[in-house]
Amino acid sequence: MRLRVLGGCVAVVTVALMASTASATDGPLPTTMCALVAKPGADGTPAVEVVDRPVPVPGPAEVLLRVVATGTNRAEIMQAAGKVPPPPGATDIMGLEAAGVVVALGSDAASLSTAGGAPPAIGLRAIAIVTGGGQAEFVCVPVTALVPVPAGLPLEVAAALPEQWTTAYQLLFEVGGLDVAGGDETVVVYAAGSGVGTAALQLLRMTGRRSVAVAGRADKLAKAAELGAAVTVNYKEDAAWADTVAAAVPGGAHLVLDCVGGSFFESTAKLLRTDGVWVLYGLLGGPSAPGPALGMLLRKRIQLRATTLRARSDAYKAGLAAGLAANVMPRIAAPSAAATSVSATGDAAPAGSAPLRPVIEDTLDGLDAVAEAFARMRRSENLGKYVIRVAAE
Amino acid sequence: MRLRVLGGCVAVVTVALMASTASATDGPLPTTMCALVAKPGADGTPAVEVVDRPVPVPGPAEVLLRVVATGTNRAEIMQAAGKVPPPPGATDIMGLEAAGVVVALGSDAASLSTAGGAPPAIGLRAIAIVTGGGQAEFVCVPVTALVPVPAGLPLEVAAALPEQWTTAYQLLFEVGGLDVAGGDETVVVYAAGSGVGTAALQLLRMTGRRSVAVAGRADKLAKAAELGAAVTVNYKEDAAWADTVAAAVPGGAHLVLDCVGGSFFESTAKLLRTDGVWVLYGLLGGPSAPGPALGMLLRKRIQLRATTLRARSDAYKAGLAAGLAANVMPRIAAPSAAATSVSATGDAAPAGSAPLRPVIEDTLDGLDAVAEAFARMRRSENLGKYVIRVAAE
Repeated sequence: MRLRVLGGCVAVVTVALMASTASATDGPLPTTMCALVAKPGADGTPAVEVVDRPVPVPGPAEVLLRVVATGTNRAEIMQAAGKVPPPPGATDIMGLEAAGVVVALGSDAASLSTAGGAPPAIGLRAIAIVTGGGQAEFVCVPVTALVPVPAGLPLEVAAALPEQWTTAYQLLFEVGGLDVAGGDETVVVYAAGSGVGTAALQLLRMTGRRSVAVAGRADKLAKAAELGAAVTVNYKEDAAWADTVAAAVPGGAHLVLDCVGGSFFESTAKLLRTDGVWVLYGLLGGPSAPGPALGMLLRKRIQLRATTLRARSDAYKAGLAAGLAANVMPRIAAPSAAATSVSATGDAAPAGSAPLRPVIEDTLDGLDAVAEAFARMRRSENLGKYVIRVAAE
Repeated sequence: MRLRVLGGCVAVVTVALMASTASATDGPLPTTMCALVAKPGADGTPAVEVVDRPVPVPGPAEVLLRVVATGTNRAEIMQAAGKVPPPPGATDIMGLEAAGVVVALGSDAASLSTAGGAPPAIGLRAIAIVTGGGQAEFVCVPVTALVPVPAGLPLEVAAALPEQWTTAYQLLFEVGGLDVAGGDETVVVYAAGSGVGTAALQLLRMTGRRSVAVAGRADKLAKAAELGAAVTVNYKEDAAWADTVAAAVPGGAHLVLDCVGGSFFESTAKLLRTDGVWVLYGLLGGPSAPGPALGMLLRKRIQLRATTLRARSDAYKAGLAAGLAANVMPRIAAPSAAATSVSATGDAAPAGSAPLRPVIEDTLDGLDAVAEAFARMRRSENLGKYVIRVAAE
């Protein structure tokens, strides 16, 4: 991966990192900013560069967010490789999420409600998923996508939340159809050490459900157990892992969160119960489904629901943001406050009462660090999220 | 295929065919009856035999139906081949549906409601899907499964309805999620000349929707056009038939009724629109899904809902029966009354007002004719349903 950094922008980043909150929100807004765009190698290798761009102007129903921190995601690596262009109408600036401070309001913004219920105001600390543009110093965000951040939670921690926790929330409650108020379904979570996986395990524990974590590394499974997984299964060490899961879930799983697809296709069909729900949200295992699995789908009347988040409508995202604001944000605790109620075995606190904690692998400084985070993600070094600090809060 | 007919049973069939309605409902019930059971060949070829069995005794919430006519279904051919045993607890007598007359009530039956809303009574003419046992002279039916037959409709016509029309109703409105009151979705129907296909096309026209019929024979496609299909596509003559369908449905189909599965898998993924619904209810094209179709599922957020009918709960079937009784039965007309409002082009009557007509290929006499119907179905000779007359009405 090759990173080209423009001199001017590095300077701006440095200034931004030094700036106080007061000067950034009270002073006049700059007219240009640093932003990250895809610059795929000739051979299709993912690469990015920091460029100068005009500070965007919020539309009537948007606010301008000064970005304090942002996260990195696998979908962005695909975009950096030129494989997944932004949806029609979306900015080419990279970044699917941001945490920051509202610094300007669109003409109608004050009459609209954030996902927290109140209208936005200058100085509001918030997170949001965006269709693009989060990896920049400023980003425009629909008011309805703004999820306010509680006063005690640092924005550089909150930056780990939007994409992964909104996705986990969507997969379980919106697409998967589970009741957010609680239930007794058993859910199998693939890639249990991923950002989405670690969020899903905690949401399942919060809602009183049993989960089975599947991953390929011992440290990821240990983390999954700490976050509430009742059963952990290492698919790399257990050739019959789908049978192991099935044996641990009498009658079969109600729901599988599947970001693998092809290579696990028959196993997923096998471990689901009759009328089970299969939520497909990634294809790390490829797009082909070898083997005669459709017979199992039919016999067990399985529902396979494929889903994505980025290209959804603003109204759909607003619904998810409202769910996150109401049901998740009040329970989020910073990772540094850990281990008072979540023990190493994960059972010290009653199921529903443990605080929710974003799992952060590392926090890196400056937009150009996105390239470093991508490189580490491609080597699958991480257990949890890379947070990119863009500016001081 | 080999059919063994017991002499005693042939005699009983003959008597039953001669008996008047009065004697059959007013006289004492016989204690034994003829019934069809699977008798697979040593090499797994489908075969059946007519045997003597005790007349079954209805449970508290059931009635005893004297069978006047029954239908044949592909799932029964599988059972006759020993490949699909009846579900646990179900009779081994074959037959998934029946049309007949109520001749005895279970102890609680009079306090329960048929799908038509009224309690059952001796002499009620009704159709029903059953978990098994419809290919016999008598069958026990849950009261909630009884769909009353309008006075003007012969039971040997009504016998073509239960399995296919309940299935079509289920696929479109219960599983597919369409509003039975109407809508503007475009639906692609595979095996458009089948019993389910011809029923689905008519239900779609009745509810104001556009349909695309896919089949492999010109006469089936002509029939589909007559029954309301806006577009017909011959997949055997058109190698790019999925593209042809896609071109006829701007934006892609909202819903596909798919009884093919594997061999059409990529085509089905291709012709659906974003957020499209894929209802899988058969695997005539095999259980394997070659090709990288999962990428299309994910990109278009497709929902693949696999479904069956036979093993569903009585409560689920009662819901379908109620839907059939309310929305379909009042519109059914006998095929012999045809062509007054449905012209050869299918457009003589306004979309919602055309009567619904079961498509009947042939009507055969006697339970032993099931073997003949199976043989013709295996040669795919039929366009529509084989009705088996078991006794005079």
